Formats: sequence, structure tokens, C-alpha cells
Amino acid sequence: MTPTWIAVDWGTTNLRLWVMDATGQVITSLTSSQGMNALQSGQFEPVLLDLLDPYLSDEKTLPVMCCGMVGARQGWTDAGYLAVPSGVPDGTNATRVTGTDTRISVHIISGLKQQSPADVMRGEETQISGFLRQYPDFDGVICLPGTHTKWVHISAAEVVSFQTFMTGELFGLLSKQSVLRHSVDVKEFDQDSFETALDDTMSRPQNLAAQLFNLRANSLVGDQSGAQARGRLSGLLIGAELAAARPYWLGQNVAIIGADNLAQLYQAALLAQGLSAQISDVTDMTISGLTAAYKSLAKA
Amino acid sequence: MTPTWIAVDWGTTNLRLWVMDATGQVITSLTSSQGMNALQSGQFEPVLLDLLDPYLSDEKTLPVMCCGMVGARQGWTDAGYLAVPSGVPDGTNATRVTGTDTRISVHIISGLKQQSPADVMRGEETQISGFLRQYPDFDGVICLPGTHTKWVHISAAEVVSFQTFMTGELFGLLSKQSVLRHSVDVKEFDQDSFETALDDTMSRPQNLAAQLFNLRANSLVGDQSGAQARGRLSGLLIGAELAAARPYWLGQNVAIIGADNLAQLYQAALLAQGLSAQISDVTDMTISGLTAAYKSLAKA
Repeated sequence: MTPTWIAVDWGTTNLRLWVMDATGQVITSLTSSQGMNALQSGQFEPVLLDLLDPYLSDEKTLPVMCCGMVGARQGWTDAGYLAVPSGVPDGTNATRVTGTDTRISVHIISGLKQQSPADVMRGEETQISGFLRQYPDFDGVICLPGTHTKWVHISAAEVVSFQTFMTGELFGLLSKQSVLRHSVDVKEFDQDSFETALDDTMSRPQNLAAQLFNLRANSLVGDQSGAQARGRLSGLLIGAELAAARPYWLGQNVAIIGADNLAQLYQAALLAQGLSAQISDVTDMTISGLTAAYKSLAKA
Repeated sequence: MTPTWIAVDWGTTNLRLWVMDATGQVITSLTSSQGMNALQSGQFEPVLLDLLDPYLSDEKTLPVMCCGMVGARQGWTDAGYLAVPSGVPDGTNATRVTGTDTRISVHIISGLKQQSPADVMRGEETQISGFLRQYPDFDGVICLPGTHTKWVHISAAEVVSFQTFMTGELFGLLSKQSVLRHSVDVKEFDQDSFETALDDTMSRPQNLAAQLFNLRANSLVGDQSGAQARGRLSGLLIGAELAAARPYWLGQNVAIIGADNLAQLYQAALLAQGLSAQISDVTDMTISGLTAAYKSLAKA
């Protein structure tokens, strides 16, 4: 199969790349840890050329469609933002990276920004674009769990507003780098503790700050296990997020774009609030969104 | 002046040591970065002997009174905890470290623990002890701002209950290691932004989780300065703590044991709630508490 174009999700810590054929199928997929944070501005092209080496030819130019932090100010090229309310960005408003090797032509999809309350996204707009290809009439709220979880209000195929929560990053910092690591840094996860803690912060969010050190103290003077502490920390933080995101999900049609355990935790948390949210796979949505952008580019 | 005894505050990241004379005056004070986290179990004595070398003699044994994390399970010797409600620990219930060099005799002051809600302290009990020497009739709440801020209810010279908040550690992680560092890691601090943010979380603590990423976004799409972002992050986190600690301070007589800017931020925050809290210097209180422990040891 001949590669026709390249799809790239280039984030802060990772790069994921798919070699695509003319029918829209994935020929090969690659993952690299050379995310934006690991690279200086001049290193993006060499990294990409290195990964693409087996697929390059002097005879033709291979289109490369990228989304994610590669388009940030501190990335390869600033791909800017569309301001919400807005349709999802696609190839027509993507930024063409100038001065690259003639065997590739690189385009970076624009992010989305919101003036008030101030917020930004890069990468999730492409997942949303993929989701809207599959569900063009979706009206409601999309939750995208991750390091920075996004809640996105969609209406009439437009992004109306959105809000970002640092829940995943907070969980990582607290469980690996704070004093809680002595109690929480285990592989096991107790679901009951998650649900109890979720309920605790949902009903009394003002008590969150008082609950954190308690996770450490409970392993010192109580009989709390590591799995219970880990489940509880996750429940406290996701509970605090859900309490603050209530205007987004309350009485809404909610969909989740995510993967694995984290998406399932959000699904369980929403179910506890009486909301049944379906999970769409984040990789599928990303490839679909990048495909939409590539196709709109070809048409333009 | 002849050294009579040694006072040591040996915490997680630092060690502070005072060489004391017979009249209770400080002859010399030393600070070292060889805190508990930097040491293996066998290294505490060599570090101490090294620092004390100019003051040691084969003719006599120098008493050393320590407080802090040196008495934790992962410290030099586990000095245990007294369970609240309890008087403050002193020399009579301190733990004598066995098998040390005969030129020193080392004692570590016990911590305090609370069964429910689970909580622990090590080091602050000695500051409280020093405070109670100065104000023996104090009845109310002591706030001890720091990496792990403590709120302590004192009545009839006993510690009735206490609660720990990870506010300082959270601020450190978020301002230095999270995505917010790009916006917040500056030296300047805007007091107005602190006060506005404090008010925001005090009145709507459930919105805290929604406010954090906003600090980053506001520097990207708004015109927020680094000093404003830093002031605001501090206000959000201290506001969340004060909201959760309300049962401690509401309608109470509050005193602060602390130093410098952080103690002043708590003082300003409490004043905004109509509470006038006096600050006692944390170093003075520590030396005074260690002195009380040394004296009770001599008497026993």
C-alpha cells in the first residue's frame, strides 16, 4: 500500500503518527516520546523526517496534517486559535509550515480560544471534529478526560463554550511528587473509595482542601490501604471537577471522548449523578478529525 | 560562653540548630539543608556530630533536644505520637536515641496524632509549646502557615484537635511544576489579585477547580501579568483552605505562628473575614518550645 498522507497528533509529552493510504485506512502507526516539551524549535522537522524516512520519496510531496501542542507558541509554528463560538477548525484554516523539506508539506490545525472566561485548547478540537463526523446532529456536552480535562458545549455543529480542568495534572503531581506519594503511589485502585470520595466532594466541595492531607494521615494512624488512598484521591479531585463543571453537565446530553480507565471513571462519576454518557475512543476520533482536516485541505 | 545544650529543629528539608548557654541564650545558630529527606537512617548521627564538632568534648555529655521529622518512622528514631486531646509533648515523654556517641545525648520530642479525622504533626507541637509558655492562658485557635499549614484548637493548655492543609505544598507544585509555571513562576506578587481570588473561593469554594487553568489561559488570551497570576493562585488556594477551615476560625480567638510573607498573607486573609490575628515569630517559638522540653528533661 502506498502512503497518501500522514496524520500526526503531536502533544506536550508524546507524538502519535499514522501513515494513511488513499482509502483512509491506517497503514502503520508510530508513537514517540518526542513531544513538544522535549524539543527546541528547530528540532520538530528533523524528528518528523526521521520517523517518516521509510515513506519519503523525491518524486512526490507527502501531505502531513498535525494537531496538538505542535501548533503552540512554544511549538513548531504558532497555528493560532479560532475564537468560540466557532465551527471546529479544519484544513482550510490550518497553518502551512514554511521552509520544510520539499518531500513533505506540513499543516497544523488551529486551536480554539475563549475570551471570557479565558480558556484555550489544542488537539481536542480535532477529536471533537472527528466525533462530529460520526454524530453530526449531536447537541449537548462533550467531556474529554485527560491531563487537562475539557468540558465542551456543542450546539448546531459549533463549539459554543468550553472549560478546562487540571484534574489529571493535579492527580499526577499529588500522587507522585507530594507527601501523599508515600500513601498513594501504588498500582491498585479501590473503586468503593473512589465513589465515596466523589460523593464527599460533590456534596461538600468546600471541604476538599481539608481532605487531602487526611489521605496521608490515614495511612499513618489509621488502616487505610494504598489502593483505598489512591481511589479516594481520584474521587476527591474528579468530584471537585464535577462540582465546578455542574453548569456544563446538569440536565445535558453528555458524551465522553477518552480511553481506558480514566474515561470509565468519568462515566461512573456521571452515572452516579444520573447521567448515562457513552464513550467514544479518543484515537478513533483523533484519526477521524485529522482525516476531515486533510480532506478539507484537498478540496480547498 | 560554654555551650550547655543544643536545640535542633530537624525537618523534612532543613535542619536548624542552636547552641545554647546556661542562661538560655543562643550562642550560635546553624542552618543546613540536610533535612530528613536527604538522609538515610544511618546518616543522622554523623551529620549532627559534624555540625557539633567545635562544641564537643570527651569530658562531658552535651544534651541535644530535637523536634520535627527527625522523629518520624523514616527519620532517625521513631519518637511516636501523643494522642489528642493532650498537653503539648515535652522532655518527659521525649525519646532518647540509643547508641549514640558518648559526647552527646540526643532526645527527640514526640509528635501529636489525632484518630478521627486522622491527622498528625511533628515539629509544630514544639512551636505551640513555646507559644503557650508566652501565653499560658491562651484559649482559641493557632494557625501555623507553612508547607503543611496546621489549624490547632487550644483550650486549658491542651491541644484539643487540629487539621492539616497541604496549601503550601500545592502552591509549590502548581507554581513550579505544573503548566501554570509558565504564567506564575515569577518573583512579583500582586496583592489585589490575591485578595480578589481569596474572596472568589471563600464565597464560591465549589468553583476552585474551574479557576486553576484559567490562570494559564488568561496569560495566553488575556493581559494578565505574572504577578497577578501568582497573587491569584495564592488567593485561590488560601481561600479554599479558609473555606474548609471555617469551623476552626469562625468566631474564635486566632493567633498565627509563622514568619515573613506567608504569615502576613494569612493575617490579611483572616482580617478580610473580620478577624484580627497576631503573628508570633516561628523561630522564637521553636527555641522557646525546645527550651521547655530541655528544662523538663533536666527536672525529670
